[in-house]
Amino acid sequence: MLAGDLYAFQGLLTDDESAIVQRVRDFLASEVTPIANEYWSRAEFPTHLVKRFAGLGLAGVERSSLLNGWLALEMGHADASMATFYGVHAGLAMGSIQTCGSPEQQERWLPAMTAFDQIGAFALTEPTGGSDVAAGLRTTCARDGDTWVLNGAKRWIGNATFADLIVVWARDTSDNQVKGFVVPGDAPGLTATKIENKIALRIVQNADITLDGVRVPEADRLQRANSFKDTAKVLRQTRAGVAWQAVGVMLAAYEIALDYAKEREQFGRPIAKFQLVQDLLVRMVGNVTASLGMCVRLAQLQDEGVYKDEHSALAKAYCTTRMREVVGWARELLAGNGIVLDYDIGRFVADAEALYSYEGTREINSLIVGRAVTGHGAFV
Amino acid sequence: MLAGDLYAFQGLLTDDESAIVQRVRDFLASEVTPIANEYWSRAEFPTHLVKRFAGLGLAGVERSSLLNGWLALEMGHADASMATFYGVHAGLAMGSIQTCGSPEQQERWLPAMTAFDQIGAFALTEPTGGSDVAAGLRTTCARDGDTWVLNGAKRWIGNATFADLIVVWARDTSDNQVKGFVVPGDAPGLTATKIENKIALRIVQNADITLDGVRVPEADRLQRANSFKDTAKVLRQTRAGVAWQAVGVMLAAYEIALDYAKEREQFGRPIAKFQLVQDLLVRMVGNVTASLGMCVRLAQLQDEGVYKDEHSALAKAYCTTRMREVVGWARELLAGNGIVLDYDIGRFVADAEALYSYEGTREINSLIVGRAVTGHGAFV
Amino acid sequence: MLAGDLYAFQGLLTDDESAIVQRVRDFLASEVTPIANEYWSRAEFPTHLVKRFAGLGLAGVERSSLLNGWLALEMGHADASMATFYGVHAGLAMGSIQTCGSPEQQERWLPAMTAFDQIGAFALTEPTGGSDVAAGLRTTCARDGDTWVLNGAKRWIGNATFADLIVVWARDTSDNQVKGFVVPGDAPGLTATKIENKIALRIVQNADITLDGVRVPEADRLQRANSFKDTAKVLRQTRAGVAWQAVGVMLAAYEIALDYAKEREQFGRPIAKFQLVQDLLVRMVGNVTASLGMCVRLAQLQDEGVYKDEHSALAKAYCTTRMREVVGWARELLAGNGIVLDYDIGRFVADAEALYSYEGTREINSLIVGRAVTGHGAFV
Amino acid sequence: MLAGDLYAFQGLLTDDESAIVQRVRDFLASEVTPIANEYWSRAEFPTHLVKRFAGLGLAGVERSSLLNGWLALEMGHADASMATFYGVHAGLAMGSIQTCGSPEQQERWLPAMTAFDQIGAFALTEPTGGSDVAAGLRTTCARDGDTWVLNGAKRWIGNATFADLIVVWARDTSDNQVKGFVVPGDAPGLTATKIENKIALRIVQNADITLDGVRVPEADRLQRANSFKDTAKVLRQTRAGVAWQAVGVMLAAYEIALDYAKEREQFGRPIAKFQLVQDLLVRMVGNVTASLGMCVRLAQLQDEGVYKDEHSALAKAYCTTRMREVVGWARELLAGNGIVLDYDIGRFVADAEALYSYEGTREINSLIVGRAVTGHGAFV
Repeated sequence: MLAGDLYAFQGLLTDDESAIVQRVRDFLASEVTPIANEYWSRAEFPTHLVKRFAGLGLAGVERSSLLNGWLALEMGHADASMATFYGVHAGLAMGSIQTCGSPEQQERWLPAMTAFDQIGAFALTEPTGGSDVAAGLRTTCARDGDTWVLNGAKRWIGNATFADLIVVWARDTSDNQVKGFVVPGDAPGLTATKIENKIALRIVQNADITLDGVRVPEADRLQRANSFKDTAKVLRQTRAGVAWQAVGVMLAAYEIALDYAKEREQFGRPIAKFQLVQDLLVRMVGNVTASLGMCVRLAQLQDEGVYKDEHSALAKAYCTTRMREVVGWARELLAGNGIVLDYDIGRFVADAEALYSYEGTREINSLIVGRAVTGHGAFV
Repeated sequence: MLAGDLYAFQGLLTDDESAIVQRVRDFLASEVTPIANEYWSRAEFPTHLVKRFAGLGLAGVERSSLLNGWLALEMGHADASMATFYGVHAGLAMGSIQTCGSPEQQERWLPAMTAFDQIGAFALTEPTGGSDVAAGLRTTCARDGDTWVLNGAKRWIGNATFADLIVVWARDTSDNQVKGFVVPGDAPGLTATKIENKIALRIVQNADITLDGVRVPEADRLQRANSFKDTAKVLRQTRAGVAWQAVGVMLAAYEIALDYAKEREQFGRPIAKFQLVQDLLVRMVGNVTASLGMCVRLAQLQDEGVYKDEHSALAKAYCTTRMREVVGWARELLAGNGIVLDYDIGRFVADAEALYSYEGTREINSLIVGRAVTGHGAFV
Repeated sequence: MLAGDLYAFQGLLTDDESAIVQRVRDFLASEVTPIANEYWSRAEFPTHLVKRFAGLGLAGVERSSLLNGWLALEMGHADASMATFYGVHAGLAMGSIQTCGSPEQQERWLPAMTAFDQIGAFALTEPTGGSDVAAGLRTTCARDGDTWVLNGAKRWIGNATFADLIVVWARDTSDNQVKGFVVPGDAPGLTATKIENKIALRIVQNADITLDGVRVPEADRLQRANSFKDTAKVLRQTRAGVAWQAVGVMLAAYEIALDYAKEREQFGRPIAKFQLVQDLLVRMVGNVTASLGMCVRLAQLQDEGVYKDEHSALAKAYCTTRMREVVGWARELLAGNGIVLDYDIGRFVADAEALYSYEGTREINSLIVGRAVTGHGAFV
Repeated sequence: MLAGDLYAFQGLLTDDESAIVQRVRDFLASEVTPIANEYWSRAEFPTHLVKRFAGLGLAGVERSSLLNGWLALEMGHADASMATFYGVHAGLAMGSIQTCGSPEQQERWLPAMTAFDQIGAFALTEPTGGSDVAAGLRTTCARDGDTWVLNGAKRWIGNATFADLIVVWARDTSDNQVKGFVVPGDAPGLTATKIENKIALRIVQNADITLDGVRVPEADRLQRANSFKDTAKVLRQTRAGVAWQAVGVMLAAYEIALDYAKEREQFGRPIAKFQLVQDLLVRMVGNVTASLGMCVRLAQLQDEGVYKDEHSALAKAYCTTRMREVVGWARELLAGNGIVLDYDIGRFVADAEALYSYEGTREINSLIVGRAVTGHGAFV
């Protein structure tokens, strides 16, 4: 049980699920945690871990949403970048093929992705619009016989510098609908340029992509993606994952702060004994517990199939907001040492900013919920 | 389903439980809601409703903690004062007898209380100390043959102006331990003076009590209350109830605000269409959802019997903190109309302050959690 | 010097000004503070104080904006209702005549108002719109020879149940411009109905007004009010006053909390010795100090004549937001006693809600500032 | 005038002072801003700028506290690291000599420091205690004839990797009082090791220092530093400087966010037109304005000589708290682009964490204020 799981939410998993969680937690603790600060510092991705992930047998397996969520939590708890790598590959890319691909396409692509032999990316966001701006999508696709020609630009595309397969979303110039394509990472006309100088999620390799007359066979167009609504189905799932990741980040921050508070002495006693320090810790664990309760119910809604956009949008916006508070309090508790990577909290503080804004900012997700509860769209 | 129950938490109740909830909700909507503002305004208690409560068959029945919690939610959703009346009677007073009384005592008192033929109160708090200050308890009991003599003062005792039975906690002058007594409301030497000029929970009749040589037979001493730890067991349960009440208050505030936002027009359109208004609503429903998730897990821990002081203390502190935000945002949304009782939100705003502070302030409950997670007490 | 004036801002007043402040402070402490809770409780206005105000020689005198502001602070510090009474009479009503009346009109009305022989009210807000909704003003005026005929409804009009003169704003049906009229409180066709059941500023007598064919001579039309922009000039001044009142409320709340913290004991020592209590106090005095710094500069801008709508809108929104935090922390510090009027803080907590929303909600004032700094209106 | 100086506080400077400010602002804009991200990224200090600072003629000159503060603001506005470099050299190091040195010592050291020919550092903080822990100071000094022998360790010492003179504070083993010494950066027995892996203020070169039998002549002991109270006098001045720097950081963040909001389009219009974006901007400028008002009054208190520890502690804690909110909102407004250094805001977000914690954490500074206003120390 994680130290911050005060209400023993892990007990809601079946024994088999809990065993899987433990296996992943052990893997992350032994393989990811020890190297995370170093790779983060160098802004590099630990490619040697990709095949190790395969060994865990996680991607593509049929599982309860609760277990899926908890695995995202564990990854966020170890490192938000690795959680993002996994979320992009197994959630956004594989999820798109699962949700929008034909059976034949699923058969063709998913096994190798499950085995981490092929890594996926997901190209929706553009330089001029966030992940939610259906109306603003400027990348185009135009049919030319049995192939499509793609033109445009994408931004912030995670994994894209080394991905084998990139799910690209583009607007059909003939019917104005958004369609999806599975494009090889080395397709002629596609260039992916790493985004440098990031101060968050530095392990994740994001790219600016340009598509200059990229030709894709009709057979590689996702056959069941006929409009932006189908894209939204994918996001609805992955946003839940970000909420779970955020809980993982909170749990890590809380543990780091708690351990520090117990060891660090001031005025001759551990600072954990001071009211102001306990106040910070209790605010943290309160946020963790409430957010976990929210995510657990969300997973139940997913499994019951009554899950809507506003459900995941609320969890994403709310849990990442609480996460931002938690990492801030943890950093505060560590005072000066909180700004040195070696004390661990710094990486979580920085990475939290990315989670807060990706897959829809707080503002966009709030407006999605707002539209659902009021019946009025207020986007513009 | 309540409008603010966006994640359909009510679906976690069994059908039978949900039917009970619906019955209580209907009762509250037809009997309590229409008169609440008027009684609140006059600072009077609607005594005619007491027997109506009996008709619901709620008190003293063996039920899941989830249903118990949800009923507290429904009462908070209708009126925090009535929720408090019920919580004092069925939670604090009956709970004390249930937890600390001998089988014979339970048999003697509980049936009439279950039938609301006898109403209970709970006298722990004193003028100089909150509900948690074991060390500071100044009311004394001294054994004199087969009777005990009680002296001292209590403050904030809900229901005490009309209660038939008052559970009084006092420190034994011989062994310094805290003991409990069931004292008739009209016992010689006991005077209960209504606290006037309240600006919150005005329907609840709180009293200052003085105990001047009140004599209580040994048979009326709670036989299994041997120290403050036994008192704490009662509070552990009732604090969970306050957390649920707080969720009820939030749900009410959200509904009032949402309805107002849909109807009130400004600049020629319903204000629900404005981003700043949606932002308030989404913050509210986020707090509701997260707090509910927390309370649901708490109920599971209660039923699993692994429930500790820190669990209820965290829920009480966290949910009432979130509630305070929610009622504030709702009031803000109603602007000027929010300060007139007729628009309903005002009563919830005012009452929230009492819930925030009773059964342990945020500070005290935070320090209870802090002690549990750090291993260090920081009360002094 | 007030206890919460940690940075000695009062030292910025001249000696003469400081003496006036001291005189007003003494008056308020001896005449208003002792009766405020009682009148608040009964929702009545202490009419016997009106002439006492006259004795202070405040209204209508040429003064520095800093002194004007500080006087509003002192009144808020004593009682927000009395501050509002004064602000409506001397700020909104007299200010309208000062700003928008002809010299003859000023001569005709202001002396008696200065002497508090005639009390003013200000009727802008309507049932369907806040104080800022120029576009939504539905009350009409139509010229008929030498008289005007007014029809419509106003809401929230302070002092209106007993005012001698009410400044009424209406839209001219012929040119669609907003015009202002000085209407006797007993004008035929004008009815003012007290708004009951208020939970804030209960001493202030607000009314719903209906104007049913009220006839006003052209001579009583404010000659220099030709459009809503002229009305805005008045609000620009009075919003600054609300910011100062809010500082006064904060100062009172801080003092009450500080005194309580020093006297109230828990665990055998004054609670002022606990870190969590000091934290609340320091947050309070921080808000007081920063808000005072803002108001002082605002007064300088006023005197320099470079004062714009966004300046007062920012101060109003910001200081009342900080005030709301402060009264909440103070109430929290007093725990249960904070909800009984006798401990004083309750009245300030309740009244703060009204200040927060009147003369433009936080939302409206934020959008006024937002328009100024971005160059884009976002009201709709 | 800076864009965020909505209340024109700069107008409080004399024309001469304003000209100096403009000169410094121009220097920073042309020399520091263009290179800051690059040096930050490489965690290097732009040593070539040291002599350029000399050219500005700033250090050591007699000036009003308002101008001193405003210069700190300008530096924070350009880059918090350069502000810190300057604050350590001119505030902490030179300030110590000014405050605690004999006239002869001032004469001996200050001219070269004023000319930036010699750079200073300030070594108070230790690995086991923050800058306020007088009681915990473990570094010792022991007199040995005409020299002193220093032993111990210091942490977080800014500029120390290249400083010519380090002001070292140590506890006298004979009388237990804290004394100060001016030690050459290359003194035998003193080693300064750069702290690596910082995620904030990366341009500042902080060091861990060990003192292993460092010998210092009595002539280099600060003659007027006889106890920790004398050290506190220095901190009292420099904490005010940090408050001003924090305002500078806020101003920069606000400008960056405002510019971005005006240019960035979403849904076909600049995002500055959306209510949720304006709300963020107005919260920012509110914090800026209130904090500036606080700092201005603080400067007046300094010049009046009535300035106490609690004054600077409050400003430091309050303004850095508000700053942390502001940079967070600005980062939020820039969404994904906010995590790339090139968009500028990222550096300010990161650096704000250091300012928030150095020269006394929020907790320590709050307790300093708390002690002053309650009369009770609550440090332990």
